[in-house]
Amino acid sequence: MASVTPDWIAVDWGTSNVRAWAMSASGTVMAEAGSDKGMGKLSRDGFEPALKDLIGDWTSGHGTVIACGMVGARQGWIEAPYAHTPCPATPVGFIAAPTTVPGLNVHIIPGIAQLQPADVMRGEETQIAGFLALNPGWDGVLCMPGTHTKWVQVSAGDVVSFQTFMTGELFATISTTTVLRHTVGAEGWDDDAFNAALSDSISKPERMAARLFSLRAEHLLHGLNPATARARLSGLLIGAELAASRPYWLGQQIGVIGAGTVARLYVNALAQQSAPATMANGAAVTLAGLSAAYRRLKG
Amino acid sequence: MASVTPDWIAVDWGTSNVRAWAMSASGTVMAEAGSDKGMGKLSRDGFEPALKDLIGDWTSGHGTVIACGMVGARQGWIEAPYAHTPCPATPVGFIAAPTTVPGLNVHIIPGIAQLQPADVMRGEETQIAGFLALNPGWDGVLCMPGTHTKWVQVSAGDVVSFQTFMTGELFATISTTTVLRHTVGAEGWDDDAFNAALSDSISKPERMAARLFSLRAEHLLHGLNPATARARLSGLLIGAELAASRPYWLGQQIGVIGAGTVARLYVNALAQQSAPATMANGAAVTLAGLSAAYRRLKG
Repeated sequence: MASVTPDWIAVDWGTSNVRAWAMSASGTVMAEAGSDKGMGKLSRDGFEPALKDLIGDWTSGHGTVIACGMVGARQGWIEAPYAHTPCPATPVGFIAAPTTVPGLNVHIIPGIAQLQPADVMRGEETQIAGFLALNPGWDGVLCMPGTHTKWVQVSAGDVVSFQTFMTGELFATISTTTVLRHTVGAEGWDDDAFNAALSDSISKPERMAARLFSLRAEHLLHGLNPATARARLSGLLIGAELAASRPYWLGQQIGVIGAGTVARLYVNALAQQSAPATMANGAAVTLAGLSAAYRRLKG
Repeated sequence: MASVTPDWIAVDWGTSNVRAWAMSASGTVMAEAGSDKGMGKLSRDGFEPALKDLIGDWTSGHGTVIACGMVGARQGWIEAPYAHTPCPATPVGFIAAPTTVPGLNVHIIPGIAQLQPADVMRGEETQIAGFLALNPGWDGVLCMPGTHTKWVQVSAGDVVSFQTFMTGELFATISTTTVLRHTVGAEGWDDDAFNAALSDSISKPERMAARLFSLRAEHLLHGLNPATARARLSGLLIGAELAASRPYWLGQQIGVIGAGTVARLYVNALAQQSAPATMANGAAVTLAGLSAAYRRLKG
């Protein structure tokens, strides 16, 4: 294996996983690595060894590391206090993580909090910075689908306001831990069912609470297909989210960050509402955000 | 222990538990017993032994048993096909469960299904019959709070239509399996928080999806009290249910079946909406419904 001598190391450290990139000063990716040593599995003194395991091939334990995500949470390596909205989308106020090696400098990017209505993000602020670095001067609303989907209003380089929806986590927990686990398939899809449920839920969101048990009853009485049930549950939940987030996206320029199936679902759902959205790759904008942080650090 | 020689035996056999009453022909309770041998824990041939364990002190294995609930589900002792709405609230079409003893006659009360919109109940139909037996000629809407809350339109002795809400199960699963488990207390209460969340959710149900993560964020940023979070989550979910069930209860005579904290929450919540409701004890109406079935069987 060719040896790699990066100028710095970019790290995206989430609750479940961690991913690292060996970077040149100009922002080229020289190598990458990942593991399942997410924040949720580590105690405070477990972060430095986990990082060394990951990047040991690239460094002798020295160097500059820039990390974003749950690594900066209260249960993380060190708590990085939140910036408060409205605030610049470009990361500032990095927090140094304690290390046992003098030459290892780990900088953690703080999350962003909104005091009223209360909301928090960690990791997404770096994606926002990356999206703006790739699209200078962009104004509009960013949608970041995931376990906890974020809708973020961006204007003149500032994060103005944002709102989090538990849509992804609700889908997972309803489809696996409630009576609907017998009805909702673990895979499979039905576009028509998704679109119909989405449209129903957006136009009559107050009926969402009434729609869930129907999936079970339609399974018992009419043999509802598990793939159709899966698509319909997804449509109901995303529809409710789009109804509640309408003040964010209506009439705005919209960017959806993410590359997978779920991001495409959001883009299609918004298109149905005559709200065209562009899609940006999640890993690419994370890396662009970490690179923007590096440039600021070296400033 | 005094020996009991009942004329018949009433059984409420749910998913988690089973409860039996030794009854006189005139409807007096002579003894009662219960166990955790619910339908969910039994295979098809486990029902007869479980019943014998429960009622063995009262009979020598002979007698008339009338049972309602999930015992008649597809995974139960024997499937009792649903009656279809609209249908009389008084149970008919009992199904005989297979037994190994000739003198043991077990009659299972069928559930009720609604084909469009698809919905099903098992056990509640007996409570409806019991409520009407105790309140002859009653017309209106019955609310039956629980894991799967039912709203039932009753007119001229018929079950006209009904709708199930997964409110109780959603509360349990959201408060114990999602990120909100760190925020929502396992006990404690805050009336003001419940009332405010309820009112917010009834008047703007489309915002429910936006409110959930706020609980987590308010905990992180403002130290939201776990008891307050618990009451607020409950208010949000019951509020969404009342918004969706409004076509059922608006301007109707309302009965809430149940005796515990949750039934009182519904009565108070409806009162806030200028919809007075009377409360009926759940076990009492179940027993009245099983007694009505016995009279019909003997009639």
